[in-house]
Amino acid sequence: MTDTRFDVVGIGNAIVDVLGHADDHALAELGLAKGAMTLIDADTAATLYERMGPAVECSGGSAANTVAALASLGGRGAFVGKVRDDELGGIFRHDIRTLGIAFDTDPAADGASTARCLIFVTPDAQRTMQTYLGACVDLGPEDIDAAVIGAARVTYLEGYLWDPPRAKEAFVKAATIAHEAGRAVSLSLSDPFCVDRHRAEFLELLNDHVDVLFANETEIVSLYQAPGFDAALQQVRGHCRIAALTRSEKGSVVISGDEVHVLDPEPVEHVIDTTGAGDAYAAGFLFGLTRGHGLAQCGRIGSIAAAEVISHFGARPETPLDALVAGRLG
Amino acid sequence: MTDTRFDVVGIGNAIVDVLGHADDHALAELGLAKGAMTLIDADTAATLYERMGPAVECSGGSAANTVAALASLGGRGAFVGKVRDDELGGIFRHDIRTLGIAFDTDPAADGASTARCLIFVTPDAQRTMQTYLGACVDLGPEDIDAAVIGAARVTYLEGYLWDPPRAKEAFVKAATIAHEAGRAVSLSLSDPFCVDRHRAEFLELLNDHVDVLFANETEIVSLYQAPGFDAALQQVRGHCRIAALTRSEKGSVVISGDEVHVLDPEPVEHVIDTTGAGDAYAAGFLFGLTRGHGLAQCGRIGSIAAAEVISHFGARPETPLDALVAGRLG
Repeated sequence: MTDTRFDVVGIGNAIVDVLGHADDHALAELGLAKGAMTLIDADTAATLYERMGPAVECSGGSAANTVAALASLGGRGAFVGKVRDDELGGIFRHDIRTLGIAFDTDPAADGASTARCLIFVTPDAQRTMQTYLGACVDLGPEDIDAAVIGAARVTYLEGYLWDPPRAKEAFVKAATIAHEAGRAVSLSLSDPFCVDRHRAEFLELLNDHVDVLFANETEIVSLYQAPGFDAALQQVRGHCRIAALTRSEKGSVVISGDEVHVLDPEPVEHVIDTTGAGDAYAAGFLFGLTRGHGLAQCGRIGSIAAAEVISHFGARPETPLDALVAGRLG
Repeated sequence: MTDTRFDVVGIGNAIVDVLGHADDHALAELGLAKGAMTLIDADTAATLYERMGPAVECSGGSAANTVAALASLGGRGAFVGKVRDDELGGIFRHDIRTLGIAFDTDPAADGASTARCLIFVTPDAQRTMQTYLGACVDLGPEDIDAAVIGAARVTYLEGYLWDPPRAKEAFVKAATIAHEAGRAVSLSLSDPFCVDRHRAEFLELLNDHVDVLFANETEIVSLYQAPGFDAALQQVRGHCRIAALTRSEKGSVVISGDEVHVLDPEPVEHVIDTTGAGDAYAAGFLFGLTRGHGLAQCGRIGSIAAAEVISHFGARPETPLDALVAGRLG
């Protein structure tokens, strides 16, 4: 039997979030596309930051958030991603390692600074993200450690990885190692605009490399350029072993061959900030999967994790998810 | 009539807070004195940070928090404090300037990094602070701009300024300029241990320089080494024009010569994190004073500001205080 040190290894952009409040009027004035993730360069990041109100900094990054939530559920995680050896890079490393997550990617010693994502949270709890990828563009196949990938039940990737130039090579290398070791590969589509940028590659990936797909409604509709959710659902069926499709307040749909589950969302008293909802859902789902639960139960755990994360400001859990899940599932 | 561009200029340590959760057991293991502010060196800061859980970074500093809350109330503030020209220094500068606060102290181009305060918040909402002063030790009288001090109705100082070596010279210079310009000088005692370190100097200051004193119960008791609150109250009477003494859930007492007000606290549904409560109270009180309100009303505005700040994680207001005060005072 092979070494299974990790439940999930996440590969993604290593980002520090800069979270501030804004209203729709301010978003319009800044010319920002509400609800989306837009890539920006260093100059735009500096200009936008100047025009942003007071902010709070906390570690983010889609796959990193997923691994953080997995750790909170009691899972064993590893993370691969590129920071610079600067102060924000130190914050990112601290926050992920202190959760017990293995994070050994060498930081860049020169070049661009650690990535940051300016997140404007509107009163309706929507988040609008402006990402400066910084040091993330240096992630490449040389950062993939075969021993770590081989030791994880699931290798999990964020679609955002298709934005920096060489990260996709890192992903294909990791996926190949994972499959050769008999492990599962999972992908999150991340963002509808990200899907627009990389549709053909994502469709190819689904056929060749992906066992478990995560997408929200707009992403899966965008992927297949389908007329609606149900049409996209029929398309994804058969293209990967498991697809978990999240629909915000409408809950989620999990599909695997002939098996289909339509799941209600977990109740949330006040939705404060939806940043990280999809990341947390993926964490709960994959945690359930690595614990041998059925697909409906996996989706339920994902919903519980997502409900915690959207009930406060910031993308990572504040309440230990293991106790929360134990309390809700009884 | 002289130029009055500012209601309050705050002079204090320019600090970025690093906020994490901890329980009493973890505090004991780390050997930390619960509820206090302890000064630590760079090595201890690095070691403690490694042992701290995931954290959130946001701008702090006692006087800086006060000026931030003043801006949220609609007041016009300026701040004097020393950061380094590093990433955390940039965060501090951004967060204060974006509030419309004038902040023009030159950052240090070399030497220690921007100050940080590791804040461990326990489930009872108490905060335990470990401060690495970093670049703050470079603040000196050369950083005091007579035009700014002269243009502010109140010059406000935190007692913590007595910890870095030359900041007290900056304070005495500022207080002298303020009084020569017919302005008021205000001091917050900051922390009972800080009072222990500098008792004789604080007592002298009260006689020579301070018009409006802020202290909480343990600080004022420590200052006079009094047997209890009422004994300390009798002592402070007559040593400065106005003393505003905060007592957590017991409210506050404002005393000025023969005038004494015993004020109830504002109701708070859930106390989450008491970091910054005293800073916000001082902001509300001074805002009221600069608007010509009576002392009881000043205390009430202080209580409303404090109630907002303790109802969430972090030391600066999240809800605009001007609207909150208008709503509560009717």
